[in-house]
Amino acid sequence: MRTSIATVSLSGSLTEKLTAAARAGFDGVEIFENDLLASPLTPEEIRARTADLGLRIDLYQPMRDIEAVAEEEFTRSLRRARHKFELMRRLGADTVLVCSSVSPHAVDDDALAAEQLRRLAVLAEDFGVKVAYEALAWGRHVSTYDHAWSIVEAAGHPALGTCLDSFHILARGSDPKGIEDIPGDKIFFLQLADAPLMAMDVLQWSRHYRCFPGQGGFDLAGLLAHVLRAGYDGPLSLEVFNDVFRQAEAGPTAVDARRSLLVLQETVRPLLREAAGLAAPPAPVVPTGVAFAELVTPDVVPVATLLGALGFARTSRHRSKPVDLWEQGEARVLVNTGPAARHGGTALAAIGLESPDPAAAARRAESLLAPVLPRRRALEDAPLDAVAAPDGTELFFCASPRPSAPPEGGTSPARRELPFWTDDFEPVERVPHDEPAVGEQGASRVTGIDHLALTQPWHQFDEAALFHRAVLGLGAQESVDVADPYGLHRSRAVTNDDGSVRIALGVGPAPTDDGARPQHIALATRDVIQAARRFRAAGGLLLAVPANYYDDLAARYGLGDEELAVYRELGILYDRDGEGEFRHCYTRTVGRVFFELVQRDGGYRGYGAQNAPVRLAAQRAEGRSGC
Amino acid sequence: MRTSIATVSLSGSLTEKLTAAARAGFDGVEIFENDLLASPLTPEEIRARTADLGLRIDLYQPMRDIEAVAEEEFTRSLRRARHKFELMRRLGADTVLVCSSVSPHAVDDDALAAEQLRRLAVLAEDFGVKVAYEALAWGRHVSTYDHAWSIVEAAGHPALGTCLDSFHILARGSDPKGIEDIPGDKIFFLQLADAPLMAMDVLQWSRHYRCFPGQGGFDLAGLLAHVLRAGYDGPLSLEVFNDVFRQAEAGPTAVDARRSLLVLQETVRPLLREAAGLAAPPAPVVPTGVAFAELVTPDVVPVATLLGALGFARTSRHRSKPVDLWEQGEARVLVNTGPAARHGGTALAAIGLESPDPAAAARRAESLLAPVLPRRRALEDAPLDAVAAPDGTELFFCASPRPSAPPEGGTSPARRELPFWTDDFEPVERVPHDEPAVGEQGASRVTGIDHLALTQPWHQFDEAALFHRAVLGLGAQESVDVADPYGLHRSRAVTNDDGSVRIALGVGPAPTDDGARPQHIALATRDVIQAARRFRAAGGLLLAVPANYYDDLAARYGLGDEELAVYRELGILYDRDGEGEFRHCYTRTVGRVFFELVQRDGGYRGYGAQNAPVRLAAQRAEGRSGC
Repeated sequence: MRTSIATVSLSGSLTEKLTAAARAGFDGVEIFENDLLASPLTPEEIRARTADLGLRIDLYQPMRDIEAVAEEEFTRSLRRARHKFELMRRLGADTVLVCSSVSPHAVDDDALAAEQLRRLAVLAEDFGVKVAYEALAWGRHVSTYDHAWSIVEAAGHPALGTCLDSFHILARGSDPKGIEDIPGDKIFFLQLADAPLMAMDVLQWSRHYRCFPGQGGFDLAGLLAHVLRAGYDGPLSLEVFNDVFRQAEAGPTAVDARRSLLVLQETVRPLLREAAGLAAPPAPVVPTGVAFAELVTPDVVPVATLLGALGFARTSRHRSKPVDLWEQGEARVLVNTGPAARHGGTALAAIGLESPDPAAAARRAESLLAPVLPRRRALEDAPLDAVAAPDGTELFFCASPRPSAPPEGGTSPARRELPFWTDDFEPVERVPHDEPAVGEQGASRVTGIDHLALTQPWHQFDEAALFHRAVLGLGAQESVDVADPYGLHRSRAVTNDDGSVRIALGVGPAPTDDGARPQHIALATRDVIQAARRFRAAGGLLLAVPANYYDDLAARYGLGDEELAVYRELGILYDRDGEGEFRHCYTRTVGRVFFELVQRDGGYRGYGAQNAPVRLAAQRAEGRSGC
Repeated sequence: MRTSIATVSLSGSLTEKLTAAARAGFDGVEIFENDLLASPLTPEEIRARTADLGLRIDLYQPMRDIEAVAEEEFTRSLRRARHKFELMRRLGADTVLVCSSVSPHAVDDDALAAEQLRRLAVLAEDFGVKVAYEALAWGRHVSTYDHAWSIVEAAGHPALGTCLDSFHILARGSDPKGIEDIPGDKIFFLQLADAPLMAMDVLQWSRHYRCFPGQGGFDLAGLLAHVLRAGYDGPLSLEVFNDVFRQAEAGPTAVDARRSLLVLQETVRPLLREAAGLAAPPAPVVPTGVAFAELVTPDVVPVATLLGALGFARTSRHRSKPVDLWEQGEARVLVNTGPAARHGGTALAAIGLESPDPAAAARRAESLLAPVLPRRRALEDAPLDAVAAPDGTELFFCASPRPSAPPEGGTSPARRELPFWTDDFEPVERVPHDEPAVGEQGASRVTGIDHLALTQPWHQFDEAALFHRAVLGLGAQESVDVADPYGLHRSRAVTNDDGSVRIALGVGPAPTDDGARPQHIALATRDVIQAARRFRAAGGLLLAVPANYYDDLAARYGLGDEELAVYRELGILYDRDGEGEFRHCYTRTVGRVFFELVQRDGGYRGYGAQNAPVRLAAQRAEGRSGC
């Protein structure tokens, strides 16, 4: 179906907005009046610009408080409407939005409303304009879609139809089933917006908290199914304004917006008998594990020291790039000192995801507007499909299962079918270091990557969740708010079914924090106490946790004194949910990156969020003391 | 009365919070549990630190969901309470807050709640601790203050009392009159927080939007009067958390906080028969006019050129400092090229306010914690009292009425009583320039300063309004939201009764905009068209306004074509309210400063806010094109 976006959903000048919408692949735009008023372009120039960009002007909304008023006031509105219809002719826009009146002068008289809207439609027809009448959720007398439709029906004019807006319908809790009773050709327009479920004044909710479909709590697919069953075949248009988008860059917002409409179309398909015209991206290919995490660093020594102390060994080196592979158990960390590393400090730049079908995973990502990355490879390298996540992290789709140790005397059949990323690495001589005694070794060693925690750009938190859910096919958990001494942090985890891929998306309190977004790699252990001791014995420094935390832990849970003494000594944090327990501790930070050692027992599903304020405060204290 | 603040109201580490509270003059603090847990100090060290700072620990709140639960759960809570009472002994805190339970396990049984709270009080008494039980507005079974009090009364234990929280009482719409029925010595604590009136989920409202007394919409003085009539004599304590304070610096927030309590005490005095112990700052001295606006600039030429084109003449120069006085009608602009000007570009650094009693105005400001500025003066200069506003603007209190032209042959009696700021200026030879013909001159000339518009630091918008209202005795109008292409702007005007002092306080969409906050001086004219023409004739550049704006103006109001053509030519914007009309236009920007020419007719009270999006977009376009 055609997709459209209201200019009010994007930031910038009108031409910036139009360009962003076109680049993201939208077919049309709704032009918001203030954007036109503030533009130095004439209506004819705007028309030419949109046409050049391949966009249609699907809707213009310059009028308010039209219907059910005294004749004198209505006459003034008609005069104003004539001006606006003339303007629309110049713009080449053929549908005008009229929202139900919020004026204190409006009277509760449906017959008068219908008569005046009919007269407006008569005038509109002269200019080739269609009038789409919409119920605002806070309209003075008309606030529900069925009420608006009954007035349109009573007016009975071909140039008058209704506009449906998902926010206004769902925020009022109206049952959208009745939409199917409206003839499809009388639904002149459909505006889509989602919103988080909040109990607040509906006007404030609408003005500040709307979001793109799939990022809030409304059942937009269900609503869209009703609208399509009614026979609507106009554009799917996003009218989404909130305080965050107004500040964000238009380009990424437009991509996020159009992705949301593609996912919505995919979601609604199974609800319909006929789904012609709906977008159908390739099916998701859910990743089955974390192949690797890749750190870039301008200085390999602190990273190598930290990995060494954590028990990782450098096992191989890329044959054509300055990239080392460090391994321990199923945890693999690439350390890249190539040109990309010179831009900033040490950072988590890429994640390798094991995929049953890397090419199909990349096709899905591309169809959902993820930027496909050039394959940075030498001629002989295994080709790796990769896309960029909204925060810039590179996601590589790697064949799965990984090869085990190369079979003696030849390649396995699996290796022939799909190239593996490890094919490009050549073993290095291992530096011998003190291995713990065998008995301990099992317990103290890292077994794999438990999760990756990535702090997102402030303006793109909702986008990040939708991206990981839709593009990668991961499931999103509820978002969690945590207050640290300097503000509220929010985090939301996305995981696959068996928990072998877990990514915790976080966001800091303010856009000013975007400069140095912390990232961390949480390493799974079977015994975090042993792992922490081993790390310390190897010279590693663990984040110091205040003693007061342990006094509270003693008061809160029935933990033994000995157990507590060990936690206290090592800086191990503790959490518990209905399913199990979580013990974790943190290394000091190198650049933007730190590591966490975790022990997850008995089905615990969280990430120790309740300990985050203590961890954040300790990290701030560490930063101040210059450690 | 003693004043206290909860550490959760301030940002930073616990020691930063304590220091900020002490510096702002608070007598005590409530320690929030997470601040203690995250602190590297032991309870004994915290106790010593607070004592050194002259602070008492008035409250500790480590417990939740205590009462009306199954015996087994309550026993666990008692065990936890024992730990916490022990901790409080180490801290030297003698009152613990217990909020009404929000647990789904709590049962609706007041008798059980009373019995369990009594048992908690028995334990507390052993440790010398008093338990203050408070109704949370979203408590599961207990959500009103009278309900909480009835349980406390039923429990009947001397170590058990109630805690009142203005937010929880007023957010629920409870009538606070019933507070007078509670014996004063059973009100163990009083927490004060204001909030903007919003229709939203009370928990979200409380967590994100609380503000200091006088900055929201609640009648805190009325509530406090009831509490004092009941006989309460404990501290007035601020428990205010919101998303903004969490990010702001602790020092200024603490000052803002304590100022709000001083103003609250002043406001409540007239409501009480006896007001012993309440703070009584000196009465406000409302300014009677704007004596001058002072620009600092590292480069005098662009400023002098702009002022010259606006019709200002340089009339005199400070006898000891590099400061020129430019005058036109009653508008006076100082241009300062001294050392202070070298820090940044051209900025509006100071405002001179005419005051019937400058010394008293300064005493009031100082008593309300406005930083008093050193009198930067040579020995022979007239002393000028000055304080800093929250945004750093210097406010000078100047004697009023200003002297007219020095009387022939001597000084007037008035001049002997009070020194005038103009005494330090010596006339300069006026550069002759083209004066318009006399007939025009009256209409085209600037008659005075209509208003000053100052963009505030993002974190201090509420503080700025309270400051100008309380310290200067100005009246605050409602705040207005305006969306420009890059985000929501908010503005709020403060004025004196006759409108001779008008300051528009604004705030941009995000803290990242704080770097270059625009400021402007609006100049009053009797005929803005003539004034604009004269400015252009003198070589001045007016901000270009898009033609589309005028097409809309034509549709909106019955303005004549000729009138519109003139507005269009000059870039004049138009607004109308129930009382009158407003016409205004803008100069280009120099540094952070621009000028507005305004014509205010027939009692119009606003500032053309509805034109702000067009103006902001035009300024952005101007910035981009490098003009």
